[in-house]
Amino acid sequence: MSAEIICVGTELLLGDILNSNARYLAQQLASLGIPHYYQTVVGDNPERLKQVLKIASDRSQILIFTGGLGPTPDDLTTETIADFFGVPLIEKAEVIEDIAQKYAQRGRKMTPSNRKQALLPKEADILPNPTGTAPGIIWQPRPGLTILTFPGVPREMYRMWQETAVPYLKSQGWGQATIYSRMLRFWGIPESALAEKVGSFFDLTNPTVAPYAGEGEVRLRISARASSQEEAIAQIEPVEQQLRQIGGLDCYGADNDNLSSVVGQLLLEAKQTLSVAESCTGGGLGQMVTNIAGSSDYFLGGVISYDNRVKTDVLGVNPADLDQNGAVSDIVAQQMAAGVQKLLGSSWGLSITGIAGPGGGTDTKPVGLIYIGLAHPDGTVESFKFQMGSSQERSLIRHFSACHALDRLRRKLLIG
Amino acid sequence: MSAEIICVGTELLLGDILNSNARYLAQQLASLGIPHYYQTVVGDNPERLKQVLKIASDRSQILIFTGGLGPTPDDLTTETIADFFGVPLIEKAEVIEDIAQKYAQRGRKMTPSNRKQALLPKEADILPNPTGTAPGIIWQPRPGLTILTFPGVPREMYRMWQETAVPYLKSQGWGQATIYSRMLRFWGIPESALAEKVGSFFDLTNPTVAPYAGEGEVRLRISARASSQEEAIAQIEPVEQQLRQIGGLDCYGADNDNLSSVVGQLLLEAKQTLSVAESCTGGGLGQMVTNIAGSSDYFLGGVISYDNRVKTDVLGVNPADLDQNGAVSDIVAQQMAAGVQKLLGSSWGLSITGIAGPGGGTDTKPVGLIYIGLAHPDGTVESFKFQMGSSQERSLIRHFSACHALDRLRRKLLIG
Repeated sequence: MSAEIICVGTELLLGDILNSNARYLAQQLASLGIPHYYQTVVGDNPERLKQVLKIASDRSQILIFTGGLGPTPDDLTTETIADFFGVPLIEKAEVIEDIAQKYAQRGRKMTPSNRKQALLPKEADILPNPTGTAPGIIWQPRPGLTILTFPGVPREMYRMWQETAVPYLKSQGWGQATIYSRMLRFWGIPESALAEKVGSFFDLTNPTVAPYAGEGEVRLRISARASSQEEAIAQIEPVEQQLRQIGGLDCYGADNDNLSSVVGQLLLEAKQTLSVAESCTGGGLGQMVTNIAGSSDYFLGGVISYDNRVKTDVLGVNPADLDQNGAVSDIVAQQMAAGVQKLLGSSWGLSITGIAGPGGGTDTKPVGLIYIGLAHPDGTVESFKFQMGSSQERSLIRHFSACHALDRLRRKLLIG
Repeated sequence: MSAEIICVGTELLLGDILNSNARYLAQQLASLGIPHYYQTVVGDNPERLKQVLKIASDRSQILIFTGGLGPTPDDLTTETIADFFGVPLIEKAEVIEDIAQKYAQRGRKMTPSNRKQALLPKEADILPNPTGTAPGIIWQPRPGLTILTFPGVPREMYRMWQETAVPYLKSQGWGQATIYSRMLRFWGIPESALAEKVGSFFDLTNPTVAPYAGEGEVRLRISARASSQEEAIAQIEPVEQQLRQIGGLDCYGADNDNLSSVVGQLLLEAKQTLSVAESCTGGGLGQMVTNIAGSSDYFLGGVISYDNRVKTDVLGVNPADLDQNGAVSDIVAQQMAAGVQKLLGSSWGLSITGIAGPGGGTDTKPVGLIYIGLAHPDGTVESFKFQMGSSQERSLIRHFSACHALDRLRRKLLIG
């Protein structure tokens, strides 16, 4: 027993819009615990839509359609579904009334083309659209097969789903079980390495554990299917504890955490402040830190020392050291961190200097070489070297650099 | 003859991520003039993936897969495709070499699980992955059927598509009848206002003109269908000229231009330099400016004066003015701009101070209130006030603030 999502619209095939409806419905089905194995996108074409209907109705028991309910000639979903099951359309008086009323409210007169939206399969129940003029249907064209249709406009679809579809599905015995997930987030370990450490967990059936990677971080999703969220969480807890133990310091948080929010929390708890000195990231580290509302409680500011003269004149980097070692070096990273810490009077000073590319790389200092400087409250200063793939994009190298810097500070705040 | 997109990943079925890959590929196929009638999403499940393969290979001639190429056990796309066509996988030495090299570059050792990514169908050509460790394949398992596979990570997929897949498809005779588009970019005018100015162009058939809006900017896409790019451009040119004339200063660029690249070009031409002073954007303006490779030729750096003491002590904002007018005021914005201009010795000083929210708003200074300060090379200093919807998200208010600041500088650089 499973549901299938079918999104109808040539604009999706042309890439004019993102398919946010499919994502929304997928999340909803997951939270209701309704299995969902396929999504299909098809254009405003009756023949191809019928082929999709044939395939979907053979393998799924709930078909959820979005799109193609409008008043224009290319809106063909309802009539194509009815035609596929050999059922005539009839004009539903209550729909005509509802549309006329909505037009009246907006001081407009209903157009003839709107009558099209009232043509529904005889036996189908109306799935009311509180905000728009296109209603959907809830229809069992044959035993064991339920069809729900929604307009493509996300805001209309969301309300119809919440107010009518969810209560209907629950009345049919669905949504008794729920799927609840926790996402554990890791920084500083490659997906393959983490996968080898926790590989045995991938065989679990409930809860399940699955790895994801992207934007330089690795995530482990723990998903439990249970009759209540509390029960699901109870199933997730022990697995989460084991995974956190195995992950150690590489596991920086869960769910909506990010490196900025975690570092911010640690600074708040320590009652300490931070300032930053940035070269190749050009402000990206400060921006990342201040993405967090309330960061003014621990972030004082920083210096974007893109030009070397700013490093020496504002941050007090020693010109001789700069000449001898170059701007991308551990000693300059350290002096940048200590410099901004002193200038702004913060507990910690965090710096980044590196080669973001695509130009500026050499054999000894290739694109992707980054030094992180960290000035501690006790006056000690250290630096860390990172070499990202020199084939990486400039934007990614800059993003990873800021993440690495925050991660270094995070580890210091945790283990001192 | 048509292509079909098949996205593999349970995370899509759970609604964890938006299917941006499908949209990107759909846009790309349209621009190549390759017909595309179906998109399918299926989970990391070999049996269901085989059913999808059966259906797709019966109705389409080019199958484009994304996802499931990673090193973990649930990455099954390659082996499932090979299994479906009854072809064994062999370990490709050049892939092993490439992966090992990438790990070496990052100072890491390749893990055994990565070898899995080198197992490809014997007859398949490798679709190189310049940035990641998972290569794709270009394979004709039987005459008249071509399979291309890509990893699910968008950035990796985009480059593989552009650098290898597009040239391959063109070599196969695709993308001859081409759809070529030019995207004109506007800042500082609402979509509705621009639509009223250029509404008559929306009725054109070839080239077509369509408006898009997002991230605070408005775009007009001019699309021409022709037998060659040159021919398409010739059709687009006159329309583009008329639209640029109507748009005036609000039209800041086209295609891959952004406010940073345009401002950077203008600064280069004027042989002038820029420094920034940021409060609520926390470095976002500097990051935006330095997104442009080569920005070190005109960008000196800046000061992130998040804390008021940094405004007074480092930027020299007058404490009395700060007390009387508050940090979010035209006079403080002006003093921040003049202060960073003086401190860093740049031609221009550009500053932002505002209330990004969600907290910190008052009746007189609501969330979304922003002041931009601009210090000119001739010593004059001015400021600009913007009020964004106080219901806007913090991240958008910060993004718009940096864009407004760059746009103000752009207009000054253009008209003096």
